[in-house]
Amino acid sequence: MQEALLEWKHIFKLDPERELSDEALERICQSGSDAVMVGGSSGVTYDNTVDLLSRIRCFSIPCILEVSSREAVAPGFDFYLVPLVLNASEVDWVVGHHQRALKDYGQLMPWDLLAAEGYIILNGASTAAQLTGSRTELDAKDVLAYALLADRLLRLPVVYLEYSGTFGDMELVTRVKNVLHQARLFYGGGIDSAAKAARAAQAADTIIVGNVIYEDLEQALQTVKAKALED
Amino acid sequence: MQEALLEWKHIFKLDPERELSDEALERICQSGSDAVMVGGSSGVTYDNTVDLLSRIRCFSIPCILEVSSREAVAPGFDFYLVPLVLNASEVDWVVGHHQRALKDYGQLMPWDLLAAEGYIILNGASTAAQLTGSRTELDAKDVLAYALLADRLLRLPVVYLEYSGTFGDMELVTRVKNVLHQARLFYGGGIDSAAKAARAAQAADTIIVGNVIYEDLEQALQTVKAKALED
Repeated sequence: MQEALLEWKHIFKLDPERELSDEALERICQSGSDAVMVGGSSGVTYDNTVDLLSRIRCFSIPCILEVSSREAVAPGFDFYLVPLVLNASEVDWVVGHHQRALKDYGQLMPWDLLAAEGYIILNGASTAAQLTGSRTELDAKDVLAYALLADRLLRLPVVYLEYSGTFGDMELVTRVKNVLHQARLFYGGGIDSAAKAARAAQAADTIIVGNVIYEDLEQALQTVKAKALED
Repeated sequence: MQEALLEWKHIFKLDPERELSDEALERICQSGSDAVMVGGSSGVTYDNTVDLLSRIRCFSIPCILEVSSREAVAPGFDFYLVPLVLNASEVDWVVGHHQRALKDYGQLMPWDLLAAEGYIILNGASTAAQLTGSRTELDAKDVLAYALLADRLLRLPVVYLEYSGTFGDMELVTRVKNVLHQARLFYGGGIDSAAKAARAAQAADTIIVGNVIYEDLEQALQTVKAKALED
């Protein structure tokens, strides 16, 4: 199942805390996107995670849980992505929470369905940055060094550039992609149109489209076109 | 060269800050040990590292640098091991120093000659624990969770149980070995006799013998026998 990672070019990210009508969910799940990822930086609970999973399960699209809190880990997803926030200022967000989760559930983990993501959070104003105390005052060389750390030293399967809420520096995203040796590059943040989706899809391997789903569903659905351009 | 890792059963660890006569060094290098590792928790400089390397180079034994500070990184070693202290309380010792080193030298790294070690430091009184602020008040489940983190989530090639200065809990070392899926288990700490070497070699994949070299060279040389027992 780890190989599935390599196929995903476009992923919709759904926040269990936010409302989405059945009709909107159906259109997302039948949009031609490669996968739906469930996750969020706040307000994610076991109940709202399982509820959203059961609604997505009416459709055939692969469903990924991005594990952001121990309490919200639910069985039944096709795949689990575990973020390690490499530029967090506290060790808990790099490996601490993970170690405690493994202490409780280590023997139960579906390792074949699980991969770690090396997160680099780049928008200091985002909830994710505030929560993790991420050091976002980074120059390009800092970001490239984090990417090398994730790709070559830690050999993580995914490097995730997270600009959440703002559209990132595509030149930098391209530079990061060019230094990666084996990891896949995920990009998320500010993709709210087909044009931005196309630019991000040129720079990264996989693009993640989130907020715009809740703000402008038609625009969100248009972003799937970027995938067709790449295929 | 990464495969060499799998062959090493016994390694002598030499501290560049400590004095070792030419005769003692010759006996260490011709002892039948698999490799010599250069490293230490304090007082390691570029000059004393290069000086020790050049003296070891008179012999054919593989020579590894365990990178403990950016300043002491020197070219010319056969292999480089980079410790990530998983139970450190500050992010710098987990990934921070590493990111800064990659910022400076990322494009120059001999990746094929380099591997990361997931360190778990277990003797709270040791220099390494003090330096890194390691959380050493760990129960067996904590240690096993760190091992899973290193082996399965981070997919590091080496898990290193470091009891430096004291002989560890061999039952726990064995339990750690039993949960590892792909990583090799290094054990270091308190091996000061052939008997302890044999016990540690039964529990771990690779044993590291350090301090006793400087305290009782004859006993240190006896520890190489543990390797013969395993072969």
